[in-house]
Order: sequence, then C-alpha cells, then structure tokens
Amino acid sequence: MNVAVMGAGAVGSSVLELAAEYGHTVTAMADSSSAVVDPGGLDATTVLDRKNAEGVVGSADPEDALEAEYDVLVEATPTTLGDAEPGFGHLRTALERDRHVVLANKGPVAERYGDVRELEAESEGEVRFEATVGGAIPVLSTIESFGPDQITTVRGVLNGTANFILTRMQNEGLSYEHVLAEAQDLGVAEADPSFDVEGTDAALKFVIVANVLRDGAELTLDDATVEGIHELPASALDLAEEDGQTIRLIGEVTEDGVRVGPRLIPENSALAVSGTQNIVQFETTYAGSLYNSGRGAGGPETATAVFADIGHLE
Amino acid sequence: MNVAVMGAGAVGSSVLELAAEYGHTVTAMADSSSAVVDPGGLDATTVLDRKNAEGVVGSADPEDALEAEYDVLVEATPTTLGDAEPGFGHLRTALERDRHVVLANKGPVAERYGDVRELEAESEGEVRFEATVGGAIPVLSTIESFGPDQITTVRGVLNGTANFILTRMQNEGLSYEHVLAEAQDLGVAEADPSFDVEGTDAALKFVIVANVLRDGAELTLDDATVEGIHELPASALDLAEEDGQTIRLIGEVTEDGVRVGPRLIPENSALAVSGTQNIVQFETTYAGSLYNSGRGAGGPETATAVFADIGHLE
Repeated sequence: MNVAVMGAGAVGSSVLELAAEYGHTVTAMADSSSAVVDPGGLDATTVLDRKNAEGVVGSADPEDALEAEYDVLVEATPTTLGDAEPGFGHLRTALERDRHVVLANKGPVAERYGDVRELEAESEGEVRFEATVGGAIPVLSTIESFGPDQITTVRGVLNGTANFILTRMQNEGLSYEHVLAEAQDLGVAEADPSFDVEGTDAALKFVIVANVLRDGAELTLDDATVEGIHELPASALDLAEEDGQTIRLIGEVTEDGVRVGPRLIPENSALAVSGTQNIVQFETTYAGSLYNSGRGAGGPETATAVFADIGHLE
Repeated sequence: MNVAVMGAGAVGSSVLELAAEYGHTVTAMADSSSAVVDPGGLDATTVLDRKNAEGVVGSADPEDALEAEYDVLVEATPTTLGDAEPGFGHLRTALERDRHVVLANKGPVAERYGDVRELEAESEGEVRFEATVGGAIPVLSTIESFGPDQITTVRGVLNGTANFILTRMQNEGLSYEHVLAEAQDLGVAEADPSFDVEGTDAALKFVIVANVLRDGAELTLDDATVEGIHELPASALDLAEEDGQTIRLIGEVTEDGVRVGPRLIPENSALAVSGTQNIVQFETTYAGSLYNSGRGAGGPETATAVFADIGHLE
C-alpha cells in the first residue's frame, strides 16, 4: 500500500525505515514544520539523514503530505490532550478523502473517540490503532478476536518507564528520585517524566481499551481515576517485599470504569513484570485469564503494530 | 451463522452450549455413531441430556449432519494421525459444498496441511484452526497479525498435562509415576497419558505453527524431533533446582525445524509457567519477544477459540 506518515519521531522514522520490508511504499512524510512528497516512494536514508542534519524532512509544507497520494495515513505525531490536535485534524482530512488511518498517536481515540467513529462512519476509510496500546503487544486485536462482550476485565502494566522505576526501587532499595535520574540517563524516562510517572500515559491506554471494550462509552482521560508513582516512598516497597508482594502501576478497565494507580500484587504474580516490559491480562467469560506481554514501547516495536494494522486493511 | 458440529466431546459440547451467546445457531451435531439435525436450531440441554442418558446425540446418521444446512462446519472429533480420518473427510465434504471449516481437531492441519490448503483453494469456503493450538490463547491469529515473515522463532509450553506433572514433581519432590497417578485422579491426565507425556500432543501443535509460519513447508509429525517427559528422573529436577533452573517440556519452531523435549530453563523465565498453564513466545524481527499465555485446553476455552475463528469468517 501507499503510506503517508505524519510525524518523524521514533515511530514515524521506524515506519519509514521498515515499510519496504512489509511491502509498502511511503509516498509522503511530514514533521511539525516540513514535508517531503514523492509518489514513487521516499528513500528512508535520504529523508532521515536530512532530518538529522537540518532538523527537517523536506522543503514542502506539512499540509502537502496530507494532500499527497496514499492509501493509508499513519498518524504518529505526539499525543495531545483535549482537542487532540493536530492529530485529530490529520485523521479528519484523510477520512474525508476516503483514506484509511492508522494511529500511533493516542489523542484522537483517548480524547475524541466518538468524533473519530462518527467521521469513520461517513468515510470509505477505516481507522485502526493497535499501536496506541502496548507497542507490538496484540491488545486491541485480541479484544477484536474474542469479541468485546466476552471480556469482563482488562488489567495490566502499560507504562514501561514507571515499571522500570518501581522494579529498580525494589531490587536495589533506592529512592524514587535516584532511580528517576538513572532512568533519565538511560533514556528510559524523559526529561519531563510527568506523563509517565503520574499515570497519564497508562490511563490514556486504558481509556482506549475501555472505548473498544464498551461500545458507546466514549470515555476520555477525565473519566479515569488516576494516581501516579511519583509520591511513592521506598519504604512502601520494603513493606510489600516483607510480605512477598511488590508494587506495580496497574491499570484496569472494569464495570466500574477506568482506574490507574500503584497496587500491591504478589511477587510471583504474572502481572509483576520487570523493567520496561508491559503485560495485559484479559479476564474472559469462558476461557479464564489470558496474558499478552512484551515490549510496550519503542520505534520499531510500535511500527510493528502499525504494519499489523495496515495488514488488516488489505 | 449456522453451525454444524462434528464431535460431541468436551469441545463440541461447549460449542453447542455457548453458540447462542455468540449469536450463532447450531443446526446439526454428530457424535461417532449418531446425529441430530434441526434447521431451526438445536436445544443444547435436550441434546446433551440425551447424550448423557443414552450415549448418542440423536437418531440420525452421522453423515446427515454433514449434509445439513450450515455456513460453518466445526470439526471437533478426536485428533488422529496419518490420514487424519474421519476429520479430514468431514473437512473435505464441507469445503466441496463451499462451506467454511473451523477445526478443533489437529489431525488435518498437522498431518495433511498441503491437502487441506489444496481443497481450500478450490472452495468458496475458508479453513481456520486457532483452536488446534493452545486453546483460547491467540497463537495463530498473532502470527497472522504480525505476518509470518516477521517471526523468526516460536517457542513455548503447549501441553498442560506435562507441565502440571513437571511442576508438581519439582515443587513436591515426587516421582513421575506418583504425580502421573495424581494427575489421572484429578482428570488432568488421561487413562492413557502417552499422547501428552511422550510429547506427541505438543509436537502436533508446533507442527501446525510451523505450517502456518513457513509457507509451503507442509510438515507432519514425522518431521518433528520429539522427546517426552516420561523417562525424566526426579533427580534431574533436583539438580536443576540447585542451579536456579527448572525443566519444562518446551517446543520450538526455528529455521532448523520443529523440536519438542524437556529443556532446562531459568526458574524466573517467562516460559516457566505453572500447572496446566500454557505459554507461547514469539521472537520477532523488530519487536523483540512477545508472550501470550493462558489455559491451553478445556471445553469452554477451546470453544472460545472456535468462536473467535467464526468471528473472523463473518
């Protein structure tokens, strides 16, 4: 398929680099201030070298990428809250042109799910967004396979940064501040870590899961009960450990809604994944609990989910 | 959809019991010596009560179920090796009538994969078989989502009976014979446990995975290297434990083919699942390792996979 990529961060760059491997052609790419368009297909190395050297992918206007020839628009600009712009506008333009949209950007489906479904209903294009939840871990496609009606609860660890910090705090007996600084040095945490450590990122993912699970719920971040790990004392982890337990930033979608917060869980629980691993537990009506786990973030990992979605559109 | 069910064991019965819940109608069901057909839909309780009381589901000939009106034939007769009959013949009849086939029976896709694909190519019907590998755990649909080309190795524990025996042997320090007898009492192992403990059942599942993963491979059980757990001394588990390791019956599909046998793995490895749990690890080219786990067997669990497959046909 012909693919246009909005966003030239880790995910957008990986989509550009790997597209040929999956049999697709990237005909346009945009970052926040520029775009490059070539109906014959972009050369990944040329575009990414220019991005590295000059800070822009090309000399065209970002809007030109939206108007280019493509079958699928991959929306990989940073997640924004509230009106979810500019991601939502990109999605709207593509759907109005009857093109498919694959989202890596959580904003549109976490904050404006109803609007997205409405635009999709009026379009020949389809919207898919496996990449917004847990990187390459098949979360939404698993719900789709079983049928949302057959899943009573979805629970798990969907923020690798918070999980890395909690794991290190417990294993090494270090303070939150110490481990956070270490995580920032390693590139596991961002300079401003609030999105991850305050639970916002995990909450957005569970809101998306809830929107898929409960037809018509149309939840947003405001509907979720969210508590982060940034005020967790190291002593809480010590106390947990004495009792054979540990603390993880657990999110869940139940009949009562969406909740994210630090929870005590047994050390040998399947949910007690280490480091940046993510895990999702699906409680089903007739098949007990199923667990999917793996790396929940990263450019190539998330691009893998994007290509899985594109595969479903073919 | 209208569904005909061949086989009235645990899986077939669960498909009959749960069909309405998933919005489907069972129009025919057969066991090895009888059948019951009703285009308006069978009543699950009536059929299963008769099966329990009289040993037959109805008074018609099993062939009548094959000739009934249905959109999907669910083949849930016991797995047989070699010619995979009678399951293969049932599949052939349905495909020749341009009906879909959903397999819970491993035989046709483990022993005659090429023949199945050939018949499918000539039919309007499609063949799906998620239920043949790991109960409700999404194994084949995960491979389908990522694309077989992106998965380098599939590895894991796909026999709950063997895993239960190994877990108990290690945790309680008991002999193989002792735990096997206990498992038979609990219904976890069959009276003749050879299919499970000799590795055949796991090998069939990994052969199916290999057939899906490597287009044109058309492997059979004969192509797999298989070793069971029935000759494993308790002392081997003791030695493993002293070294922080454990032993599991691990199967894998690699470039070198299909191999099943007892393997030493670290006690804290994701693959070291307990009891009757199953787990599958997918090594991917760009997204690291992903793990799916859950109950790999059981009537309702396997029926859940059957309905997921039927959902994909709609």
